[in-house]
Amino acid sequence: MFASRLRLVSTRLALHGIKPFAINNAIKVVSTAHISRSYATKSGKQVSYTADKFPGYVRNENFKKLTEQDVEYFKTIVGENGLIYNNEDDLFAFNTDWMHKFRGKSQLVLKPKTTQQVSEIMKYCNQERLAVVPQGGNTGLVGGSVPVFDEIVLSLQGLNKIRSFDSVSGILTADAGCVLEVLDNWLAEKGYMMPLDLGAKGSCHIGGNIATNAGGLRLLRYGSLHGTVLGLEVVLPDGTILDNMSTLRKDNTGYDLKQLFIGSEGTIGIITGVSILTPHRSKAVNVALLGLNSFEDVQKAFKQSRIELSEILSAFEFWDINALQMFKKHATPKEVMQNEYPFYVLIETSGSNKDHDDEKLTTYLENMMVDGVAEDGVVAQDETQIRELWSLREGFTEALGKEPAVYKYDISMPVPKIYECVQDMRQHLRNGGVFGKEDSPVTDVVAYGHVGDGNLHLNIAANRLDNRVSELIEPYLFEWVAKHQGSISAEHGLGVAKNEFLGYSKSPVMIKLMKTMKNMLDPNGIMNPYKYLPSS
Amino acid sequence: MFASRLRLVSTRLALHGIKPFAINNAIKVVSTAHISRSYATKSGKQVSYTADKFPGYVRNENFKKLTEQDVEYFKTIVGENGLIYNNEDDLFAFNTDWMHKFRGKSQLVLKPKTTQQVSEIMKYCNQERLAVVPQGGNTGLVGGSVPVFDEIVLSLQGLNKIRSFDSVSGILTADAGCVLEVLDNWLAEKGYMMPLDLGAKGSCHIGGNIATNAGGLRLLRYGSLHGTVLGLEVVLPDGTILDNMSTLRKDNTGYDLKQLFIGSEGTIGIITGVSILTPHRSKAVNVALLGLNSFEDVQKAFKQSRIELSEILSAFEFWDINALQMFKKHATPKEVMQNEYPFYVLIETSGSNKDHDDEKLTTYLENMMVDGVAEDGVVAQDETQIRELWSLREGFTEALGKEPAVYKYDISMPVPKIYECVQDMRQHLRNGGVFGKEDSPVTDVVAYGHVGDGNLHLNIAANRLDNRVSELIEPYLFEWVAKHQGSISAEHGLGVAKNEFLGYSKSPVMIKLMKTMKNMLDPNGIMNPYKYLPSS
Repeated sequence: MFASRLRLVSTRLALHGIKPFAINNAIKVVSTAHISRSYATKSGKQVSYTADKFPGYVRNENFKKLTEQDVEYFKTIVGENGLIYNNEDDLFAFNTDWMHKFRGKSQLVLKPKTTQQVSEIMKYCNQERLAVVPQGGNTGLVGGSVPVFDEIVLSLQGLNKIRSFDSVSGILTADAGCVLEVLDNWLAEKGYMMPLDLGAKGSCHIGGNIATNAGGLRLLRYGSLHGTVLGLEVVLPDGTILDNMSTLRKDNTGYDLKQLFIGSEGTIGIITGVSILTPHRSKAVNVALLGLNSFEDVQKAFKQSRIELSEILSAFEFWDINALQMFKKHATPKEVMQNEYPFYVLIETSGSNKDHDDEKLTTYLENMMVDGVAEDGVVAQDETQIRELWSLREGFTEALGKEPAVYKYDISMPVPKIYECVQDMRQHLRNGGVFGKEDSPVTDVVAYGHVGDGNLHLNIAANRLDNRVSELIEPYLFEWVAKHQGSISAEHGLGVAKNEFLGYSKSPVMIKLMKTMKNMLDPNGIMNPYKYLPSS
Repeated sequence: MFASRLRLVSTRLALHGIKPFAINNAIKVVSTAHISRSYATKSGKQVSYTADKFPGYVRNENFKKLTEQDVEYFKTIVGENGLIYNNEDDLFAFNTDWMHKFRGKSQLVLKPKTTQQVSEIMKYCNQERLAVVPQGGNTGLVGGSVPVFDEIVLSLQGLNKIRSFDSVSGILTADAGCVLEVLDNWLAEKGYMMPLDLGAKGSCHIGGNIATNAGGLRLLRYGSLHGTVLGLEVVLPDGTILDNMSTLRKDNTGYDLKQLFIGSEGTIGIITGVSILTPHRSKAVNVALLGLNSFEDVQKAFKQSRIELSEILSAFEFWDINALQMFKKHATPKEVMQNEYPFYVLIETSGSNKDHDDEKLTTYLENMMVDGVAEDGVVAQDETQIRELWSLREGFTEALGKEPAVYKYDISMPVPKIYECVQDMRQHLRNGGVFGKEDSPVTDVVAYGHVGDGNLHLNIAANRLDNRVSELIEPYLFEWVAKHQGSISAEHGLGVAKNEFLGYSKSPVMIKLMKTMKNMLDPNGIMNPYKYLPSS
């Protein structure tokens, strides 16, 4: 029945030029599961230290330098095998982010296995003024999870147990170090799914997701972590365990303190446990890809999808031809359309009734073709094709990573402004003489992102790092974003990459209150220093 | 087509005993729009003062007593007409909650019209140590929005303008004093709706909803305000305006400070502006009512609805026969089923395609009848019947309000425990000798609530206030809830009614941190004193 109904759908769509795409020969599968480690084999010598690369960082001399006695003490907590000490090779992966843009000089990684151990470690570090960087899957893009100087890395990878699951309410509790994809696969067997999904799912930890308030591909449908996280267990900088592991959907008893830790990037505490509301896994998932002529059309397609696909819409992603060409430069993505178009939109629906969803999607796609909003379209016919269409969207990050240099931005703004920003940046770089000529350092400006969230991933690829380029981009881009009431960091966070620019998105009153909050919770400033908030 | 398709659906359902209910003669319409004022005509003399009724309250003598000079100063900010001073009759409605359980002794109500005026008022009050109670629609149930002693009432009703609406993203910005229903009606014309709905919608303010983290009838579908509120404008206790009116779905730039004010019940600042994500108004809404034999069956019906109705499920409410009988005692609800059942479930679906939704609901209802989960069922055939079914659910609060005395509780816990709690409480009151005999003070124990949220509204009706009853209920009920990892306040908040019991739901570490937070933001303690956090 499944196949024949699909044929019917296909026939109806074929009238309008929308095709199921042919199952061609094997394509290069872009495995998102290993993105975060795909560059980790490069030699350490190639990666310069953050403190050298970005001048202005000075080690805070209030922090004690690690001693042999300290290491001996930590061994009493985590055991001989629970730490990595003074071993450059083994330390490298913890000192360096996966993009190899940031690198710290830590001599010690601690791998506690329980919340109690995390608490004991923090109590000691606070007493001794030893600075600490909490680290999850280390898949971040802003240098938030690696040290700048000699901060101790506290890795959560040893806290990786699922604690409980309530199959009536769909509420999951788990250690913070559980890998997102592992949790999602585990829930799949129970008919549930994690309410967030992102490219790095094979490596990132749920604790890190929450500490960075990860958004990702399905925020449009399942909302932000501020809504889905029901409880947290957090170790405060002085070692106090804050047990707020509620498994209730409703609980109005006092300030919702856990919210402060969602998106706090390890600066006021270490998330060790998580309680999260998980939605039912949809029985039916459809994915369609559209080719469009303008960003105007992308917006029209989005607006109409909100009306016609409404409750089953689970993703609405876009990219431009430059992103596709960048992908093709470094890999061989599946050819799913005969022609190329200036814009692409990937639409995913998830629902409980395949027939209903097919009908809604078919009607929507027909309307898009008839109204001239879309130029071409394909609909995935099975799980494999769904993955193939998604792999197009998910391949850009890895492809860009193969460029000699890439300036990455993650900004949000009102939807109509998104592509104006991209075009303006291209012109600005051309005017500045760094883009558009044969010997220009900038080779391309690539755009993709989550239309539904007003979230643009703007990537400026270059054949070398060039001060002229950086100076043309920043603060120009941040000023542009601020002028349009946008955010300089939609989902990647601040880390060391954006902290000094916070003033473009938050008022002095807000920043002052943030600093008061930080000082209250971490008076010695030992948690993830040199990051997040501006230094001055 | 609409009617004929409905007939088809009806025929299919009729086979299983599920009927569209007949449009009978006019029923008493329970208007929820006026609930909050329905008792305000009672004479003030009947309502005793909070400080007399609940002994233990002592006026904090650090607070200055209001002087004529203060009043003159406030006139320079809000004008002669912007305040009510020393007029018992006019002050009554601001000093008293709508249930007439709590009553303060304020001599002054201020009605600013702008955020700037709120700021000037707070700056002065903070300098002068004048205590302040922010007040929205005054529809709360825990005494949070009325004074205990002579605190100045700062009413937000003058801040009632819609600021902006983005019809692509569905993001609304508005003054905090806008009435929820007014906003919802305004959005209806644009094809959108507010993401929350509750019985008091005709009076409550959006600012008050956020200050109390209101849950209500559709949290199941649209999630908590922690997820849907995108930005807030807040006047801090010292008059500082915290402008966090973001209209972005994604913004990871620093601690999400606005979250602290969601559910803070006016104790750390006054919400003056709101930015909120609103969903598309559904084209199709269905409401069905089921009669069931046990709470086991209620749970089965719920679990199956999550699977079969999934993305279109927008409410799943339950009540017991006692609730229905209480309604019938004070009003004449529509008779929609021939027989009575121990339990009722109201199911609402909202979706973008009426045919699809009807089919899903019909299949679900058929399954419930065939599997013997439901004993009887009716499906609303039009808007009027939808309202009639909802009015059943919404009538309990008003009916209970007509009892001589009612002990109201709003608790959350794992779904399977909900009715165990009710039965246990009945037995406990019987054992205590206050329920079950002809001259017992307790006349009934009535239960209804939001199954999907694990949220029970437990109401103990009595023919008089009786210390034996209160002492049997509290802390027994709170201990019961704590033992089952529940919350002593699911959605109503703490106010003066629950603050001393916070320890049943939050650990000493959590409460200590809450107090630190309060002291940091309101060092003089002038904001909504005597409430929210425990005094010791």
